[in-house]
Amino acid sequence: MRLIGIDPGLKTTGWGVIEHAGTRLTHVADGVVTSNPKAGLADRLVELHDGMLAVIRDLAPTEAAVEETFVNTNPTTTLRLGQARGVAMLVPALAGLAVFEYTPNLVKKTVVGTGHAAKEQVQMMIGTLLPGTKFKNADSADALAVAICHAHHRDAPGMARGAR
Amino acid sequence: MRLIGIDPGLKTTGWGVIEHAGTRLTHVADGVVTSNPKAGLADRLVELHDGMLAVIRDLAPTEAAVEETFVNTNPTTTLRLGQARGVAMLVPALAGLAVFEYTPNLVKKTVVGTGHAAKEQVQMMIGTLLPGTKFKNADSADALAVAICHAHHRDAPGMARGAR
Repeated sequence: MRLIGIDPGLKTTGWGVIEHAGTRLTHVADGVVTSNPKAGLADRLVELHDGMLAVIRDLAPTEAAVEETFVNTNPTTTLRLGQARGVAMLVPALAGLAVFEYTPNLVKKTVVGTGHAAKEQVQMMIGTLLPGTKFKNADSADALAVAICHAHHRDAPGMARGAR
Repeated sequence: MRLIGIDPGLKTTGWGVIEHAGTRLTHVADGVVTSNPKAGLADRLVELHDGMLAVIRDLAPTEAAVEETFVNTNPTTTLRLGQARGVAMLVPALAGLAVFEYTPNLVKKTVVGTGHAAKEQVQMMIGTLLPGTKFKNADSADALAVAICHAHHRDAPGMARGAR
């Protein structure tokens, strides 16, 4: 079972693909899709769409897990994130993948053991849970953490939300 | 020149297509695309995508105008709207249409003459500007107003934002 984790953002969307066989997890690949901040919004959403579609076609995951966006107090930031997140959820759904959502707290709790873990703790645990992984950057590390979270919860009904 | 106006929403996205020849505007069609509130978010975004894609394929507009979402003080509402709006902008852009954005105030100012017009005034003016139009409902009327706004501003550089 191949899973893709996605950490959506308009400027940078992180992705991480893992293989899940029994209790064994293996790193497949991770990276980011970016959009040009100087382009118009519609063009930027097309960039995210095309980039994520290429990753899904190349690596052929069968399920997707998307981080639930932290609802910012700045409404303009929240709107931007929402637009990127809409595309990040649409692309795997159109490709026929089941799409699940996880809160940042549940991701941290699953990977580190506490919902209030620091980013560095999450990144350190990725190296332990996916031995030998050298992730590209902080955004793709977050995406790998979401994929790990989904691997742990996908067999527990009621934990994952928003399944197709 | 055929234009589509779009008023995005997760539950209901309004659309309105007009024909623009010189100073003459004609109503072509209007309606709404809805998503099932009981479905998961990814499924709902797919419903919006499929519905808007069908409209664009059927009616073949060459430019799209999307209402800039009112940034709500409720961040959860803003996030939902953002997700729907991301899809509403992505679909015409992927279909090769130029996509423009207009603020609700500019739409009202263009259609009624004042940025603080009531919904009823906007709807009444649609009947005047597109003679004989019986629009489907309030959401598709809003979308027609956005299309009319774009018809008036498309030749004025600097008024329309976010062109592809």
